[in-house]
Amino acid sequence: MDPKPTTTSYSETTQFVLPNDTNVMDNLFGGQLLKWLDMSCAISAHRHCHRITVTAAVNNVSFDVPIKLGDMVTIKAHVSRAFSTSMEVWADVWTENQFSGERIKCNSAIYTFVAIDEQGKPVPVPPVVPVTEEEKIRFDGALRRRQLRLILAGKMKPMEASELKALFA
Amino acid sequence: MDPKPTTTSYSETTQFVLPNDTNVMDNLFGGQLLKWLDMSCAISAHRHCHRITVTAAVNNVSFDVPIKLGDMVTIKAHVSRAFSTSMEVWADVWTENQFSGERIKCNSAIYTFVAIDEQGKPVPVPPVVPVTEEEKIRFDGALRRRQLRLILAGKMKPMEASELKALFA
Amino acid sequence: MDPKPTTTSYSETTQFVLPNDTNVMDNLFGGQLLKWLDMSCAISAHRHCHRITVTAAVNNVSFDVPIKLGDMVTIKAHVSRAFSTSMEVWADVWTENQFSGERIKCNSAIYTFVAIDEQGKPVPVPPVVPVTEEEKIRFDGALRRRQLRLILAGKMKPMEASELKALFA
Amino acid sequence: MDPKPTTTSYSETTQFVLPNDTNVMDNLFGGQLLKWLDMSCAISAHRHCHRITVTAAVNNVSFDVPIKLGDMVTIKAHVSRAFSTSMEVWADVWTENQFSGERIKCNSAIYTFVAIDEQGKPVPVPPVVPVTEEEKIRFDGALRRRQLRLILAGKMKPMEASELKALFA
Amino acid sequence: MDPKPTTTSYSETTQFVLPNDTNVMDNLFGGQLLKWLDMSCAISAHRHCHRITVTAAVNNVSFDVPIKLGDMVTIKAHVSRAFSTSMEVWADVWTENQFSGERIKCNSAIYTFVAIDEQGKPVPVPPVVPVTEEEKIRFDGALRRRQLRLILAGKMKPMEASELKALFA
Amino acid sequence: MDPKPTTTSYSETTQFVLPNDTNVMDNLFGGQLLKWLDMSCAISAHRHCHRITVTAAVNNVSFDVPIKLGDMVTIKAHVSRAFSTSMEVWADVWTENQFSGERIKCNSAIYTFVAIDEQGKPVPVPPVVPVTEEEKIRFDGALRRRQLRLILAGKMKPMEASELKALFA
Repeated sequence: MDPKPTTTSYSETTQFVLPNDTNVMDNLFGGQLLKWLDMSCAISAHRHCHRITVTAAVNNVSFDVPIKLGDMVTIKAHVSRAFSTSMEVWADVWTENQFSGERIKCNSAIYTFVAIDEQGKPVPVPPVVPVTEEEKIRFDGALRRRQLRLILAGKMKPMEASELKALFA
Repeated sequence: MDPKPTTTSYSETTQFVLPNDTNVMDNLFGGQLLKWLDMSCAISAHRHCHRITVTAAVNNVSFDVPIKLGDMVTIKAHVSRAFSTSMEVWADVWTENQFSGERIKCNSAIYTFVAIDEQGKPVPVPPVVPVTEEEKIRFDGALRRRQLRLILAGKMKPMEASELKALFA
Repeated sequence: MDPKPTTTSYSETTQFVLPNDTNVMDNLFGGQLLKWLDMSCAISAHRHCHRITVTAAVNNVSFDVPIKLGDMVTIKAHVSRAFSTSMEVWADVWTENQFSGERIKCNSAIYTFVAIDEQGKPVPVPPVVPVTEEEKIRFDGALRRRQLRLILAGKMKPMEASELKALFA
Repeated sequence: MDPKPTTTSYSETTQFVLPNDTNVMDNLFGGQLLKWLDMSCAISAHRHCHRITVTAAVNNVSFDVPIKLGDMVTIKAHVSRAFSTSMEVWADVWTENQFSGERIKCNSAIYTFVAIDEQGKPVPVPPVVPVTEEEKIRFDGALRRRQLRLILAGKMKPMEASELKALFA
Repeated sequence: MDPKPTTTSYSETTQFVLPNDTNVMDNLFGGQLLKWLDMSCAISAHRHCHRITVTAAVNNVSFDVPIKLGDMVTIKAHVSRAFSTSMEVWADVWTENQFSGERIKCNSAIYTFVAIDEQGKPVPVPPVVPVTEEEKIRFDGALRRRQLRLILAGKMKPMEASELKALFA
Repeated sequence: MDPKPTTTSYSETTQFVLPNDTNVMDNLFGGQLLKWLDMSCAISAHRHCHRITVTAAVNNVSFDVPIKLGDMVTIKAHVSRAFSTSMEVWADVWTENQFSGERIKCNSAIYTFVAIDEQGKPVPVPPVVPVTEEEKIRFDGALRRRQLRLILAGKMKPMEASELKALFA
């Protein structure tokens, strides 16, 4: 399969935070953001491989900045790296105040998607070719994050995760 | 604050998978499950501390078994450990076939919640006292997972994470 | 068919009351609670008979305590008695304050479900075996409530409802 | 307060049955219909008294005819009788096939609403004046149904319900 | 095909404005009203022709009066004129205050629907016979509006729109 | 107020078409697309003026290409011209097949928004400066469309609409 540049899978979505998306402090529920993130990452995964894709894992997501009722939330996602049948998808989240227009980057989230056929069997996806500096950094880190995910899921032994192990040396 | 046994925060919820929750293969969207998990974990966090709580992070979540349209999904959550102002909340997911009644454990998810006051400042929460064997194993692992989360969020250096480091030795 | 103990059909669900579920006084709409009750009762009916089940009737439901925005609502349901192809399902509702943790039992609701095959024809369901004192009381009362339901639906004459008639003697 | 004719409170609503409203047999969920019924009855209750109104009870509702995905559902509601601070509201349900245009009356439902002030205290509502034959029959039956509801809620003794008792004589 | 009087397609729907339907000023979002209008017009189009119908165009809609949270919104729609395979559907919107009961006509909207067969091909619909004065005025104006719509869609040249042209003479 | 280039208000959103958004032919409902269009246009209007904005009118929208269940729908919107307190907002719609990746431009929609203060009074907005050829064409046409909208709303006489009149000369 022909490799594809990271830009192939770029997706962007902006949503208003409505009353039902918020808690008693009028802040966006984490769960609603996780759902929007999954949708945006799924769109990027589709754009990369044009196959049915399913969420395989959520890697670390941090919520550092509260997002308020009435704010606009922009999610930009892209496939940062492909591994045979799976794709690491990275999403960046900005919040934008309705009145000041100020945009703040809230956080980044990393999901893993798998491409499947109609029987639900994993199928190969094209490789990703990172171009910008940021795309390259995310591409490189994806291998360590994959080892971490496999260890946490009990599918790899810590001693075998050479890239990850190097971090603690 | 008086410590509380893990059972204080037990929560349980069962939902039907409806058409709008599914993708073209009639399987539950990952994003919808992430939202339900967040709600269930939030209920457990409230029951433990009776404060406003907000999602601070999602630790690793794996989706290994596809969940079908019409299935019933049961989520059982509890606070596995408290750290000053934050709580690790663990959720187990079962799927139950509408006709055979067969129940399969699909996966476990780990979220982190923080308790806050009305100005949004973190406030202390009571410690957790694990009782059963499983509660104790989760309580013990929570420290390593917290170090991992802080490293991933850039708030701790890998070399300082002594419990985690030991895994790779 | 082998009889099943009442516990087979126990179901439990906890939900947050969100803004869209409330009226201008920030209280939960009766209609939203009726929908949640129907879902919980349907889950219990499925667990009892593992067939397609449909709501046949709603028996009396009273709303005595207003439920507030932000409250957690817990619904516990079970099949109280089976009659050939139909099941009386009983649901108890608790509200739980987000901050005090106080739980109040709001009310009980009684629904009737029918088990059907793929052509929509009613099919037999197993008998229920009540064990606890409360399960027995509900089992016994189910016969009178069934007579009442049939009279109200014009399917039984008041004079034939011997158990019910005894109440007014 | 001046009495009002039944027509004052007439309300009508037509909805399409969408995929998320249906079960695995593509029939409308009972719970969704109960929610729509509650909304329609609330509109009628408002039109009668122009106060905040809350659902106090659901009297008997039967589901005799399955309603299919894509059908149009029409609900017509009106206040059949007022009792000091409460109103009995009657709703009739028609289903209408998208292609044949055939309309079938599915069932009738009876709800009870209470008018309240801003502190949640019950407030008086105007009497209802029935005009048509059907309005008069429903007005007359409302007294027996109220006695039945109070008995079921444990607020009246069967022996005191003279109108109801007469049925079984 | 036999012509049908305008009344055949009359539809009426009343909805409450809920929190999720509103913006930061607690007014109904225009987009939510547009969705409700489309549903009501689709019901009228179905009632006129008993075929699958799809929205072909939205003609001018003005929003002159803000609609508040908690208001009741009534939409009355009917097919004002049929053109071979398409129908002009007119919807009038009233808002009704929950407490005063005051009803204000907010605006009128005009949609165009097309009847199609199962392959998506347009199929003929019966003519409309207007009876009341208002029905006749709307019937007559429909021709000019159709010319305007075809011009705006680039399917007719302004010079050919004789009825419309006369307006500017 | 300083004029702003058209790019200031660019917004982009991609959504999946889910089961509840579709009719019996598995095509996206027109009403759901109208709601999404309104949201996207509102985001553009906010980005242009940083004020509360409300939908004032929907100008002509045509639906020429059916959008299927499972398709991705991308809406790109921008403010094409400002008039004292109102903004014409133009939205282009693309549909993208989940498997082939083929993108088709479906249609364009034009909405009018008004900027208001907290009492609901219209407030001035900055002028728009079009840069690209397409932005200029839309900017120029906006004046004719505004005259048309005012005539249709009965706020301008056809004879006074000099730009529009010229079309028919």
